[in-house]
Amino acid sequence: MQMFEKLFLPAEFKRRVQDVKKRMQKAGFDLIVCQDPANMCWLTGYDGWSFYVPQCVLVHVEEEMPVWFGRAQDAKSAHITTDLPDRNIVPFSEPLVQHPINHPYDELAALIDSRGWGKARIGVEMDAHYYTARCHAHLTRGLPNAEFSNNADLVNWARLVKSEGELALMRDAGRICTAAMNRAIETIRPGVPQQMVIAAIYEAQTLGVPGAAGDYAAICPLMPIGEGTSTPHLTWSDQPFPDNTLAMIEIAGVRRRYHAPLTRTIHLGKPPAEIGDVAKIAVEGVDAGLAMAKPGNTAEQVEAAWQAVLKRNALKKESRVGYSIGLAYPPDWGERTASLRPGDKTELQAGMCFHIQAGLWLKDFGVAISESFVVTDKGGERLCDVARELIVVD
Amino acid sequence: MQMFEKLFLPAEFKRRVQDVKKRMQKAGFDLIVCQDPANMCWLTGYDGWSFYVPQCVLVHVEEEMPVWFGRAQDAKSAHITTDLPDRNIVPFSEPLVQHPINHPYDELAALIDSRGWGKARIGVEMDAHYYTARCHAHLTRGLPNAEFSNNADLVNWARLVKSEGELALMRDAGRICTAAMNRAIETIRPGVPQQMVIAAIYEAQTLGVPGAAGDYAAICPLMPIGEGTSTPHLTWSDQPFPDNTLAMIEIAGVRRRYHAPLTRTIHLGKPPAEIGDVAKIAVEGVDAGLAMAKPGNTAEQVEAAWQAVLKRNALKKESRVGYSIGLAYPPDWGERTASLRPGDKTELQAGMCFHIQAGLWLKDFGVAISESFVVTDKGGERLCDVARELIVVD
Repeated sequence: MQMFEKLFLPAEFKRRVQDVKKRMQKAGFDLIVCQDPANMCWLTGYDGWSFYVPQCVLVHVEEEMPVWFGRAQDAKSAHITTDLPDRNIVPFSEPLVQHPINHPYDELAALIDSRGWGKARIGVEMDAHYYTARCHAHLTRGLPNAEFSNNADLVNWARLVKSEGELALMRDAGRICTAAMNRAIETIRPGVPQQMVIAAIYEAQTLGVPGAAGDYAAICPLMPIGEGTSTPHLTWSDQPFPDNTLAMIEIAGVRRRYHAPLTRTIHLGKPPAEIGDVAKIAVEGVDAGLAMAKPGNTAEQVEAAWQAVLKRNALKKESRVGYSIGLAYPPDWGERTASLRPGDKTELQAGMCFHIQAGLWLKDFGVAISESFVVTDKGGERLCDVARELIVVD
Repeated sequence: MQMFEKLFLPAEFKRRVQDVKKRMQKAGFDLIVCQDPANMCWLTGYDGWSFYVPQCVLVHVEEEMPVWFGRAQDAKSAHITTDLPDRNIVPFSEPLVQHPINHPYDELAALIDSRGWGKARIGVEMDAHYYTARCHAHLTRGLPNAEFSNNADLVNWARLVKSEGELALMRDAGRICTAAMNRAIETIRPGVPQQMVIAAIYEAQTLGVPGAAGDYAAICPLMPIGEGTSTPHLTWSDQPFPDNTLAMIEIAGVRRRYHAPLTRTIHLGKPPAEIGDVAKIAVEGVDAGLAMAKPGNTAEQVEAAWQAVLKRNALKKESRVGYSIGLAYPPDWGERTASLRPGDKTELQAGMCFHIQAGLWLKDFGVAISESFVVTDKGGERLCDVARELIVVD
């Protein structure tokens, strides 16, 4: 056996599914099709790197438990990682994998019809990463009498407030991230090939901390260097670090698929005063945001508190300053729900988690010093504990 | 600067784009929208972990070079990693990221229209992993006079035969994979916590081999254990390996996004004879497949050669036995084109690369001993060099 200790008791899954059914009734759905792997895991416990083929979890308001639908060779993974009864684990035929004409969702449509749900009001995740245009075309074609609409990430929104069990994993993830970032900072030196720092990060992310091994992250370690720091998503090469340069490292600690991301900016050699000044403003802005992150305030108020600090210092950041985090699979550790940005009036509640990505990508360089935090009565509680400043390796 | 040495000369990108335009003319497309990150990279050199937001490369038959379209903060990455002229790098507005009503592809539609392509015959990648139902809905709504259809992975098919430069990277990837798999085999022992083996794999994958650092893989290390070996996509936990168990490790070596995957099966303690027998059959089947992998033979003939060995031994495998490999991004290192399976009549050519996944997932256990290979006149040339047998750690 894979020796998975299941993380959550059946009662927690039951509570989650009941909450989702209430949201479905309010939104007018009989059935939802959840292809986001994080939604599949959150609803059932299903875990495996099988999301490169079409697969989903169905929730019907009148069916007690969800139905897992996926590739035949992954059905055994569903039996191992979930408590679903056999009847609710339905494999599709192997020849449908990457078939040019037929598609696994032809069989999904047949399954839905066979359960008597062919005329249901069906909510699909129109913008979930793996719910492709072709998935949608085959599903809708196969169910001509159903009424389809976008469920607007209904399950993602249900995931926003974390349970105590989930928060314990988030705190583990924060400790893992702290260890991995500190390893990176210890390793980065002029002359060191870039891949050595990344290897140290991967090792620390995976070994984790005493009592909590690490899991794979939804995003690989990001490490823009020099001029590259003016854009956030570049990865490493095998060039050595020069004597005098700026580097940005963005990574997550991950515990059983729960993510705590963190970004730090490092200067090799004596930094120009300008960079140090921007770093101080970023940290001050984060602190203003954290102070605002209390239940009852809104997501946009957190952003406004950060933006006020920038404005006072004649800086601005156009992109959103953060997003909700939690359970995640590649390619993104954000939950695609609440964003810390103008216009987002999501009311904060205790137990929501965010990554405040205090990044300033200026014309020729960038500085980012972020924090992952939990919303509490006292403001945002930081999940990681790494030096909060421009880190200088001299 | 990020210190990217660009991997391919402008002439190679030009050749690729010209080949794609010929395929477009043959298929009746004026314009294609390529969202598969591997297609974006192959056509332009663009590289960055930004594929969690909508982005694409456009190829129009009458426009000399492709057009990159993506998030404003990633446009700088396009300037750094490609040779595209400024005019062909078009950012979308930041507030469109994960916006509930508007979508980046509203602006993509406007861009296409502004270039005079509003009535074009447009081929989209209906089943590319990140081309969501919502991307398609916004793009088609924004271009009511265009004629949309599935381009059936036109660029993926153009990638099938690798250039000499690409083959050099594939061979580097094979050497990296060999090193990483051997590190895993050295590390796995009864009593060792699972994450230690995974940490060793990540470290070796990233450090690479002399002259070739490793890159992130499109799939995390997979390691089903015990009963879990009867299903292929499970990942590790923090339990120690028991004294007597079966484990399967599937990883890739990756060089500048080119992948060479490999699977090995390891028994801790003295293995039951049955498992060793199945392993021998798997290797014999792979050898039969490799011998058939010559130019002029078809993909299905490789599968048939493998299947004949199984049949002679009263075994069968229903899933496809392999797929083309090369440039890849998460969540899959397969190219989604030719499969080694019945009915696939793709004629093999020198320079095509495949992963023959000789996996037998039986009821209670599984054995997989795979190879990545290049099609040559002498048959499949293996890219990795790891012991080809049931590996016993006693």
